[in-house]
Parts: sequence; structure tokens; C-alpha cells
Amino acid sequence: MSYGDKALKMHKEKKGKLEVVGKIKIETREDLSVAYTPGVAEPCVEIAKDKDKVYDYTIKGNTVAIVSNGTAVLGLGNIGAEAGIPVMEGKALLFKEFGGVDAFPICLDTEDPEEIIKTVKLMAPVFGGINLEDIKAPECFYIEKRLKEELNIPVFHDDQHGTAVVVLAGLYNALKVVNKSLEKVKIIINGAGSAGIAVCKLLLNAGAKNIIMCDRQGAIYKGAEALNPAQQEIAVDTNSSMESGSLSQVIKGADVFIGVSAPGVLTSEDVKNMNKDAIIFAMANPTPEIMPEEAKRGGARVIATGRSDFANQINNVLVFPGIFKGALAVRSKEINEEMKLAAARAIANLITREELNEEYIIPNALDKRVADEVAKEVMRIAREIGVARI
Amino acid sequence: MSYGDKALKMHKEKKGKLEVVGKIKIETREDLSVAYTPGVAEPCVEIAKDKDKVYDYTIKGNTVAIVSNGTAVLGLGNIGAEAGIPVMEGKALLFKEFGGVDAFPICLDTEDPEEIIKTVKLMAPVFGGINLEDIKAPECFYIEKRLKEELNIPVFHDDQHGTAVVVLAGLYNALKVVNKSLEKVKIIINGAGSAGIAVCKLLLNAGAKNIIMCDRQGAIYKGAEALNPAQQEIAVDTNSSMESGSLSQVIKGADVFIGVSAPGVLTSEDVKNMNKDAIIFAMANPTPEIMPEEAKRGGARVIATGRSDFANQINNVLVFPGIFKGALAVRSKEINEEMKLAAARAIANLITREELNEEYIIPNALDKRVADEVAKEVMRIAREIGVARI
Repeated sequence: MSYGDKALKMHKEKKGKLEVVGKIKIETREDLSVAYTPGVAEPCVEIAKDKDKVYDYTIKGNTVAIVSNGTAVLGLGNIGAEAGIPVMEGKALLFKEFGGVDAFPICLDTEDPEEIIKTVKLMAPVFGGINLEDIKAPECFYIEKRLKEELNIPVFHDDQHGTAVVVLAGLYNALKVVNKSLEKVKIIINGAGSAGIAVCKLLLNAGAKNIIMCDRQGAIYKGAEALNPAQQEIAVDTNSSMESGSLSQVIKGADVFIGVSAPGVLTSEDVKNMNKDAIIFAMANPTPEIMPEEAKRGGARVIATGRSDFANQINNVLVFPGIFKGALAVRSKEINEEMKLAAARAIANLITREELNEEYIIPNALDKRVADEVAKEVMRIAREIGVARI
Repeated sequence: MSYGDKALKMHKEKKGKLEVVGKIKIETREDLSVAYTPGVAEPCVEIAKDKDKVYDYTIKGNTVAIVSNGTAVLGLGNIGAEAGIPVMEGKALLFKEFGGVDAFPICLDTEDPEEIIKTVKLMAPVFGGINLEDIKAPECFYIEKRLKEELNIPVFHDDQHGTAVVVLAGLYNALKVVNKSLEKVKIIINGAGSAGIAVCKLLLNAGAKNIIMCDRQGAIYKGAEALNPAQQEIAVDTNSSMESGSLSQVIKGADVFIGVSAPGVLTSEDVKNMNKDAIIFAMANPTPEIMPEEAKRGGARVIATGRSDFANQINNVLVFPGIFKGALAVRSKEINEEMKLAAARAIANLITREELNEEYIIPNALDKRVADEVAKEVMRIAREIGVARI
């Protein structure tokens, strides 16, 4: 029975994956009078007097909205708000399971960015953070930017930043394995959508100096035709040698390939043309840009994919539960670049020099230590740079 | 230690009363592949093909949004979205505890009815029903009316209809005790806000013929001055004898007093002027329109209040968990008058002729049989009148 069939069976039997349960039981009149009327009036009055008390007396401090309109769900594309719900429920499940964070799916029946922004702002009171999910580009950039400016709680588009953090974590360790430095390597990022651009930005902030982004048309360079605003912006900070041409052309002499694109776009020939000890992150799902054995044939030294059935699975679940857990714990106003870099370091550092090898550059997606380590580092940095409120 | 102090302590210790938990655990790669990627794509695809499948594969079918903007919270008035959260969490707790329904607080930072309507419509995909809560009149009437017209899931303003149903349930039994009929009794409803008007409408639909509503200015009659649209509408169907004057004047010769108004507005003198075997529902909270012992002194036979420390507590918790449980179970398009009447009968009929007496006209608020009985009747009627989808 395939995972898909098992998923259909399980989702139908359980009627979804989430439950909203009480932290306390209601068995006596006393219970009712304390959890509800008349007692409940007191916390209400305290919050009315001082809005910040909402963190003391309600679920806000540990609760995240998973906001999606279903326009870019997995590889399925624009399937709508209802059809995206199983993914958002799964996300909420992982938030709780790995981060102890309570998350609830807010699936919005609109493609209008202004309506999404307005709605999220109106329902923000009960949420301590906003996780944007599976909203298509370029709208996702604008929605995140506006919400970051207009809300005083963390807003995080996981498809962009969760991916960027976990890629950087894996890359830190892959570079240790091949003994190369992030500052010196030539990196090709194939796929210039929201994930690819976010990966590129974070790698630049981490110190990478030589990145070339490619899309279907080939290398992206300053002034190239048919670039969207996000690509034009990134072109300024990448491909300083203004290389043009196809992926197969620009990958020559590269040390690192990062694919957030499509199945089979990278050949073992391309890998042969890369530098010695090539690092391949082929994250197209379910079929990677190049299959691991083929990349090996091309001479790749470290190979990672998005799949759990190969070594080195690059999976966002290593990021979002811990990064939100940490941000919520200190009531951070935001999740910023420094916090993302801290999260990537924390994930990478979970693997000791002794454990580290070609087949083990990133912790297992189910490694329950990760979220706590990430949260700890995120809290520390948030306080250090003064975005923490406690 | 008062209930208020206990509530402050408990809310702070627990940091709110709700948790969002998974129906399944994620311990193996298989778990992850079935609950999340790649397996989760299958239910998404099924729903994309047929939107109704959202009821099969997600939490929608058992999930209710508790929507409030905090403009009429308990007796506290307009304290805002954040300050209302503890009440909405308490409500969600009771939904789960008594009805097995998953409910989540949606606390909206706006007083604009159009913004509330728009927001609820946009976030409706994940919810099987909408419970409007603590939204001030007259906006609450308009918001409910619009959402009922524009959504195809049940929309229920509990402050209005939950109160109306539980009052009717209590009145059915109180009338049995004094051996009078709903069609013949003279009923005074004091308090012409959203609750009072909803009670009046449901009693009329249940067969009451002689109701006079009062507000601070006294009896409401057709053409009276300073009536809001809802009061003007209700004036047409009540007070056919066009009585005017204060509560103390019009209550003469009445059989039933229903107070949803303010502390101490009814005196034992007023009760003395009522007919023999007077029925008093004094539901102002925490201090009733008249204290039970004083009503007794006036000669009242059956006395109910909103308080748990007196006999006959009139409490909405007897209504909303069961009425939503039933409506959700048959995927009802709405919660209509017939379903409310069925709920009231179900609650009343839980008390047998043998058990029934002056001190026991309504089940205990903690009686766990109630929700199931209400749900059963609501399902039956919903199917009978053809609003059920399964």
C-alpha cells in the first residue's frame, strides 16, 4: 500500500489530524466557575487594563496561525484553500510534536494579497506568531513584507526561510566534510522561485561570495531579460562575473549545486564538470534534480535530497518548530536574519566532528533534540540583538 | 479564595486553557510520510477534485470557529478582542468537554460589521460551523443575518439563541410544574437587548401568544418612541393589548417573568401583583433581577437564575455543545428555528415527570447526558426538514 493510499485511509478514518482540547477538565461546578463564568471575568479585566497581559492569561504566547490560501501546495500548485487543509493540519501536527507549539490552520479563500494581509491582521490577537505557508510567488513576498511591517509578532514564510535555514545547516556540514569554505566556493542555485531566492539571500548573509542563480532560461545576471522584481534584486548581489548561458554551462567549475527546481534537470555529465568533491543538494520532490547514484557516478562527494529514503534529507521540519518555539518563548517581535543564521548553526552543530560524514551531514528529521537546540540559540540571539520582549 | 482569584491563578499557571494536539503521533518515517509529505498529497488531490471531500479528509466536519470582537463580553461590555480571549477559550473548552466538538477562538480586532463578515467568510474553509459570541447589538443581528445568507454552514449567535433555547427548555418544565399552558400565560420579558429579543422570538415560535417586552423605559408597544429596528420588529408581534407603563405596572396579572436585564429591578411587591404560581427567571449575572428568597416572599412558585449556587440554573452550556454536535453530524446547512425548538424539548424532556419539581426544572449544567440528547433531536429534525446534507 503506497503512502498516498495509507494517507487517504488514515485521513478518512480520523477525519483530519487535529483536536482542540482543554488543558483542564470540567467536572465540578468549581471547575466551571474558574474556567468560565463567573471567574473568567478576572483575567478578562486584567487584559483589558493591560493588553500585554494577554500573554499571561491566554494561549497567545504559544499559539501560531498557519496561514495559507492554497495557491502553491507541495508540488500540486494552486489547489485552493480547502484542498490545502491536510498539509496545514500536518504542519500543525509537527509544530506540536516537535516544538510543543500549538498551531491552527487558517485557510483563506482568496488570492488577493490585500485581503490576506487584512484578514491576518484582524485575527492576530489570539496568535503569538504567523507561519505563512504554500502561498504562491510573487504574492508571498509582498504579503510577508507587509505583515512584518504591520504586526508586532513574528511572521515567517516557511517555504522560503525554513528551506533556506535547513539548506544552510546542511551546507555548513557538507563544507566541513570536503574541507572547503563558504566564502570561497562557487555555488549554483537552480530554481529562482521563492525558495531559491530565500536560500540565496541567507547564504549571502552567511558569507557566501560566489553564487549564480539559474531558472529555466539559464543563469540570472544583472540586466537579464524577463526577471521578476525579486530576481532583479537578487541579480545585483550574485553572479558578479556576469556569466550567462544554461545550467550545464555555468555549472562548470562549481563546488556546490543547490536544486529547488524540477526532476532530472542535472546530469552526471554536469556533475563531472564541477570541481572535485562536488556537493549536490537535489531537493525537487518527490523526484530530485539528479538521483543520488547518478550524482555519485558524476563524482559528487556529498549528496542530499528532500527524500527520507536517501541519506541526508533536507527537511523544513528541522527548522520551523524550534525557530517558533524560541521566538515565542522570548516574545520576539520578529524572526530576523540573525535568528535564522543561529538556527542553521544550531542544527549543523548537533552533529559532532566524529559523527560527521558524507552520509550524515544533517540530523534526522525525527531527531527530537533539534527543536530544543534551535530554540535555545534563537532565544539567545533574539535577546542579544534586542528583539526579545522578555 | 474567590473564583476570580482562582481564575487568575489557573489562567496564569496554564497560560490559557486550550491546546491543539494531533490525533496521531509522529514517531517513524512512515508516520511522517503518511501524515505529511509525500502521502498527504493524496487527500489534497481528492479535495481539489471534489470540495465536499473536505469533510472526509480534514477536521472541518467537527470544527467550529468561536468568533468575537470583544464588544459585549459577559457583563464587562466592550473590552476588545484580546480581553475577550479567556471567555472564548472557556467556550471552546466546553464545546469539547460536553459536545466533543473542536472549537477555536477567532478574536477579531475590529468593530466594523463588514470587516467581521468578510473575515469570517474568508476563513470559513476549515470550519464546519460559526459560533458568534459576545458581539454587541445591534451589529450582532446584522452580522448573523449576512453570514447566514452568505455561508452554507451553520451560523449561530449563542448569546441570542443559546439563551433562548435554554429559557424555553426551563419554561416548558416550569409550566408543567404549575400546570399552565404556554399558549395562555402572560409573559413579561424584561431587557430588550439581543438576548431578550431572541428569547421573545423563540417563545412566539413555540406558541406563546401573550408576551410583553420591557426595557428601561417600560413596556414596548407598536409605535412606541426610541425603539431600535429589532425592537420595532418585535413590537408588532407582542403586547397586542398595547399596554404601556413601567415594569411594575405591566407585570400585574402576569404568569411569567423573564429577566435578561439588570440586578434588583424586580421587587417582591411586583411578584405579589403577578398571578398565582408565578414563574420567575431572573438571569442577570452575577446579581439577579430579584434574589430567590425575595421572589419566594412575593409568592413565586418556580424560580430560576443564571447562578450555579441556586436551584434551576439557566446556562447556555446546556445548548451550544449539543446543538452544534447535532448540526455538524449531519452537515446541516444551518441551525434554524425548528432545530432550536427541538433542542429545547430535548433538554426539558431529560427530566421525568417523577423527577420534576419547583427546584428541578432544568438539568444540571454539568449533566453530560444533555449534549447527546440535544444532538440526537437536532439531527432528526435537520434531516426531517431537509437541511441535513448527510
